[in-house]
Amino acid sequence: MVGGGLTSFIGPVHRKAAGIDGEIELVCGAFSINPQESKETGQSLYLDPRRVYATYQEMFEKENALPADQRMDFVSVVTPNHVHFGPSKLALESGFHVLVEKPIAFSIEEAKELQKLVSKTGLLLGLTHTYTGYPLVKEARQIIKSGKIGKVRKVYVEYPQGWLSTLLEGAGNAQASWRTDPKQSGLGGAIGDIGTHAANLAEYVTGAKITEICAMLNAVVKGRMLDDDSSMLLKFSNGASGVLLATQVAAGEENNLNIRVYGEKGGIEWRQMEPNTLLLKWLDRPTEVIRAGQQYLSAEAKAFTRTPAGHPEGYLEAFANIYRAFTKAVRDYKPGKKINAAKYDFPDVEDGVRGMNFVKTAVKSAQSTRKWTTLK
Amino acid sequence: MVGGGLTSFIGPVHRKAAGIDGEIELVCGAFSINPQESKETGQSLYLDPRRVYATYQEMFEKENALPADQRMDFVSVVTPNHVHFGPSKLALESGFHVLVEKPIAFSIEEAKELQKLVSKTGLLLGLTHTYTGYPLVKEARQIIKSGKIGKVRKVYVEYPQGWLSTLLEGAGNAQASWRTDPKQSGLGGAIGDIGTHAANLAEYVTGAKITEICAMLNAVVKGRMLDDDSSMLLKFSNGASGVLLATQVAAGEENNLNIRVYGEKGGIEWRQMEPNTLLLKWLDRPTEVIRAGQQYLSAEAKAFTRTPAGHPEGYLEAFANIYRAFTKAVRDYKPGKKINAAKYDFPDVEDGVRGMNFVKTAVKSAQSTRKWTTLK
Amino acid sequence: MVGGGLTSFIGPVHRKAAGIDGEIELVCGAFSINPQESKETGQSLYLDPRRVYATYQEMFEKENALPADQRMDFVSVVTPNHVHFGPSKLALESGFHVLVEKPIAFSIEEAKELQKLVSKTGLLLGLTHTYTGYPLVKEARQIIKSGKIGKVRKVYVEYPQGWLSTLLEGAGNAQASWRTDPKQSGLGGAIGDIGTHAANLAEYVTGAKITEICAMLNAVVKGRMLDDDSSMLLKFSNGASGVLLATQVAAGEENNLNIRVYGEKGGIEWRQMEPNTLLLKWLDRPTEVIRAGQQYLSAEAKAFTRTPAGHPEGYLEAFANIYRAFTKAVRDYKPGKKINAAKYDFPDVEDGVRGMNFVKTAVKSAQSTRKWTTLK
Amino acid sequence: MVGGGLTSFIGPVHRKAAGIDGEIELVCGAFSINPQESKETGQSLYLDPRRVYATYQEMFEKENALPADQRMDFVSVVTPNHVHFGPSKLALESGFHVLVEKPIAFSIEEAKELQKLVSKTGLLLGLTHTYTGYPLVKEARQIIKSGKIGKVRKVYVEYPQGWLSTLLEGAGNAQASWRTDPKQSGLGGAIGDIGTHAANLAEYVTGAKITEICAMLNAVVKGRMLDDDSSMLLKFSNGASGVLLATQVAAGEENNLNIRVYGEKGGIEWRQMEPNTLLLKWLDRPTEVIRAGQQYLSAEAKAFTRTPAGHPEGYLEAFANIYRAFTKAVRDYKPGKKINAAKYDFPDVEDGVRGMNFVKTAVKSAQSTRKWTTLK
Repeated sequence: MVGGGLTSFIGPVHRKAAGIDGEIELVCGAFSINPQESKETGQSLYLDPRRVYATYQEMFEKENALPADQRMDFVSVVTPNHVHFGPSKLALESGFHVLVEKPIAFSIEEAKELQKLVSKTGLLLGLTHTYTGYPLVKEARQIIKSGKIGKVRKVYVEYPQGWLSTLLEGAGNAQASWRTDPKQSGLGGAIGDIGTHAANLAEYVTGAKITEICAMLNAVVKGRMLDDDSSMLLKFSNGASGVLLATQVAAGEENNLNIRVYGEKGGIEWRQMEPNTLLLKWLDRPTEVIRAGQQYLSAEAKAFTRTPAGHPEGYLEAFANIYRAFTKAVRDYKPGKKINAAKYDFPDVEDGVRGMNFVKTAVKSAQSTRKWTTLK
Repeated sequence: MVGGGLTSFIGPVHRKAAGIDGEIELVCGAFSINPQESKETGQSLYLDPRRVYATYQEMFEKENALPADQRMDFVSVVTPNHVHFGPSKLALESGFHVLVEKPIAFSIEEAKELQKLVSKTGLLLGLTHTYTGYPLVKEARQIIKSGKIGKVRKVYVEYPQGWLSTLLEGAGNAQASWRTDPKQSGLGGAIGDIGTHAANLAEYVTGAKITEICAMLNAVVKGRMLDDDSSMLLKFSNGASGVLLATQVAAGEENNLNIRVYGEKGGIEWRQMEPNTLLLKWLDRPTEVIRAGQQYLSAEAKAFTRTPAGHPEGYLEAFANIYRAFTKAVRDYKPGKKINAAKYDFPDVEDGVRGMNFVKTAVKSAQSTRKWTTLK
Repeated sequence: MVGGGLTSFIGPVHRKAAGIDGEIELVCGAFSINPQESKETGQSLYLDPRRVYATYQEMFEKENALPADQRMDFVSVVTPNHVHFGPSKLALESGFHVLVEKPIAFSIEEAKELQKLVSKTGLLLGLTHTYTGYPLVKEARQIIKSGKIGKVRKVYVEYPQGWLSTLLEGAGNAQASWRTDPKQSGLGGAIGDIGTHAANLAEYVTGAKITEICAMLNAVVKGRMLDDDSSMLLKFSNGASGVLLATQVAAGEENNLNIRVYGEKGGIEWRQMEPNTLLLKWLDRPTEVIRAGQQYLSAEAKAFTRTPAGHPEGYLEAFANIYRAFTKAVRDYKPGKKINAAKYDFPDVEDGVRGMNFVKTAVKSAQSTRKWTTLK
Repeated sequence: MVGGGLTSFIGPVHRKAAGIDGEIELVCGAFSINPQESKETGQSLYLDPRRVYATYQEMFEKENALPADQRMDFVSVVTPNHVHFGPSKLALESGFHVLVEKPIAFSIEEAKELQKLVSKTGLLLGLTHTYTGYPLVKEARQIIKSGKIGKVRKVYVEYPQGWLSTLLEGAGNAQASWRTDPKQSGLGGAIGDIGTHAANLAEYVTGAKITEICAMLNAVVKGRMLDDDSSMLLKFSNGASGVLLATQVAAGEENNLNIRVYGEKGGIEWRQMEPNTLLLKWLDRPTEVIRAGQQYLSAEAKAFTRTPAGHPEGYLEAFANIYRAFTKAVRDYKPGKKINAAKYDFPDVEDGVRGMNFVKTAVKSAQSTRKWTTLK
């Protein structure tokens, strides 16, 4: 693991998620740019002190020096956005598969460089777009793919949060500080932090691509350097249209990612905060309440469920699903063999590049006086 | 009553709503352009056959010939959109107050003519924007007005329906036919039929005006002559921004009007389909579930409630609230006296003009390649 | 109307409910034991002062003296419990149909006397067990009757309220005072006031009868003279068993009547506070969300709906359904003709007697040390 | 670990839950009475084959022979009910702490023997009453303890499931078979399997003890040997009364454990299937929606939360909370030191004995014709 020191939010999430299925053991780490913090983090995790490294460069070098059956199998990169690229690049160059926290990099250029490197090395790169890990998101995707609700017409995807309603970054909040700093977060604030999750979810569930964007981005809180609020009209590759909103100033909202998709015959609705329920609406008969863990679910959804219906699974389990799928691919990997991320169902480098492209296009659209901007 | 014959949808709604409080008695009507249908409708309503008229012109004339204490007090106009203007105009010219079904007229020009006539005659013109009649909509307005949630930043208002997901107008459905016919409905389809309700609700609740619109209108169903789907980005006079969507092709949705408003310190959420609950969200403390009929409500909300908490009120009661407020104003009316609709809390001719303006501007924006179009 | 003066809660409810459909006109009343209040009430309702009476005895006498086409068609009795019997009895003896507020009388003996009188005169007696007036309650009944969910096994019916959590009757609250006074309410407090609604709903929905009761009744609030809280185990005539709870000390609950019934293959769930939704659960497929106003409903439910799906109906409309059904029967009535209340679907004298029996048996069971007491 | 072989339901749940926090490593096991299955289970879990044992007797013996720093720290017993006692007893006698799946034993006598053994050895025995592991259950307990809602008056606790609506045990379902077999499950069916969870939850949340029971137990499905359905009236040590229902024939219900408690001033409501929300109701102000992960929660609830508000936690996390609390106690344990389970907040041997007592008393009450049976 690179990053994820004692004060990290996402580091422990990765570790807990990785721990659930008993398939992954954390064996080494470079947890902080502060070697002392790295050391203490390793200690708190019961790691062999020899495998707690001061830098990721050191880690890749020394792990590579270990016998193959002791060496780490892949590396998780859980640093702030602007430090995703460096360790990911070096990991691939050093021969390690990479599971990197979203976004894949700081800029579209970096993302494309990783894309080339993946293509060149044939190694695996996974991206933790957590929310597509939920079983009922997979069920929604299957329902739409099956044609049950007919051709998709409308897509409404929302990601309202409220926690940045005040200038937290001015009050010393670490999570707020790097997220609102263009030097650490990149071009986009809310649009990059959570808008990309919404866009990724919309494309994953519908199987279509966003092709045109008409965006409004705002820095609502005085003094903020990046957007904390976004809304946009969308057109999709399959002829559908829609709305995406991602905001961090919806005071009182927690983490209310949700999606509604309507086709000719019906629609689906899913809300991350109650992730074990999926509504399937029909034009002329009663709405059905699809529930996680039920026998009637598709094989694709069932494969990512751990408990029977009525025993709720949550965010960590969705996260664990990304880890499990990625791990399975790592196990199946052989040099020269082409691994199809879609088959294993984990987000990969293409999703990473797409996400960076989405942010860039949304920012461009927001600055334009023209209604529509194309997303390639 | 003008319109509201045996096959009408909205006519009986008006009559039932008017009947709830025992303050209004239907005494006469010209219920249809078909005199026979008008006659039969009158019969079914136990009216004196002498006061069931063949035309509204006849009605205004003959009612005016009656002694003041027998003559009707005001007239309800519940005809299709393109027949709102004629009877409303003649009623005002004939000295009758008018309660007209929304939209006020077929075009902005007609609306402005009515506005002038109201100004000239001093008579009352009310508009049945039903949804602002709900007590908890009034509570939401009071909460925002009071400053409890701070300065308003975001407004999300939605009106998804699904009933026009197929080409019903091609299948002989009367309700669908006039609503999708530009000759009967005017410039806008969904945007006129339900988008205006959404815009009116947003302005009513926030107390702010929509100033700029960036709209996408679609005729999603093949063969449809008017838009059946709309979404737009909004800017408001108070600096807030937002999203409005109004669609009739969200298959599986019934009549799911809803609004969310976020300020600096919290937000409100209200859904028409569960109208007796209003969520009041806070940045740093638990969401409160405000309920109709409770003692803790504002006087403004209480004044429009008929039953104690837990005894649900619905659409007809909201409708009746418009009638009751309008009737109260009619009672207080004296020639020469200025009646303030806002004080009685019913939508009036200004709301009517504003609605027509909204539709016109949305259609103009949809046709433009520029992002923003100003709404005056 | 007998009772329903200016300070009455249920009187205006009856009047509003009766007014919705334009089928009923209030023509006369004896609104209070205080002739002055009766007079003022009549005035506020725009009644002919000659038909506002000082006593119900006077009303029956004078109305009978009017020509048949002017005379009232039936009488609503909306007085406190201990004054249901007197006017109902005299009305029947005077040749008037009666719609009486629940409970039918003060004691089982009175109830049986009315039963005999109904049988003897052939006149109609309806009872406003409001909650069975909701269209989705009728749908639930039809679903169970149809056998869709198989043989009924379990019935859970609840009626929690919180408003009597303090000694309101000691603080001058009129509604609380008569309800907690054995001289005005009879044997039962909560069990009579709301428990009877719950029992009636359970029997109506399942089509089965409660045959055995094991009850616990409590006067939870110190100083209260009647039970304010009840819970009981039940056995039903069809072999099902269940639980009924009715309490007025569930602080924070409004009027949360609800019922769940489970059969061999599925179950239904309905909640009065969101009455336009009915859940239909299945053993092996997704729960269906049945909605009022939808095309797919049974004829029995549709017949009691006024607005399309998504336009919520509430308590007054449910109440109006009882009035409408009763009025229809009154219209069809001819001396000597046997009217079947079940066909018109309104609660009648049998339900009234059964309710009194239920209260008596519950009280008896509560006082017994034996587990089960038979309800005949 | 004892039990939890390849076909086990609860074994993997224990392992996943134990894995989340990175504090526990599975080092050895006797996973099945079938040594081959035990071996294969160990293999699938990447265990050292030398520490995969054929019997639990062998495991305790051989682990004890290992140096203290290699030997297992405690043992999880996850066998069917009738095999809880044996391994738990031997583990304690062999000097190992025990975390045993609920119920603690097959009979009250066995439970009391374990109680004595715990008392004698001073070792720790934890019980996985999972549902009290949810953070908002702890919050509910704190709210009540704090006196916020006043003296507790009513307790309604329910545990409806539907999965045993048919004779699954006759169709070869392993989970159904042992649960409905008196030889493997003991005196109670549903009452033992899930009723004990409900009773434990009620006592945990209220801090009061059930003192009297009036129970009805049914074997609803023909051919079933144990009760699959129960309901009972309850009295509590603090003067409150209530209702408990636990059924496995509520067709269409998943795992709908829920509790409502009402005091003089308000009430709480919690539902296991949406465990991140807790309703706090008030007599005279709006209901508050308490949410997991929020800053305003009590320290007791926060201590058992892993993710920020809006990132749902579920069943495995609740389970992990029991493991984490128990592990913490194991770490703090020193021979001769008295460990207070309540301080660490995990269910212990007292809860185990109480659960057995509850089942025994409920069965006794069900067989009695007297209304009340005392629970000591």
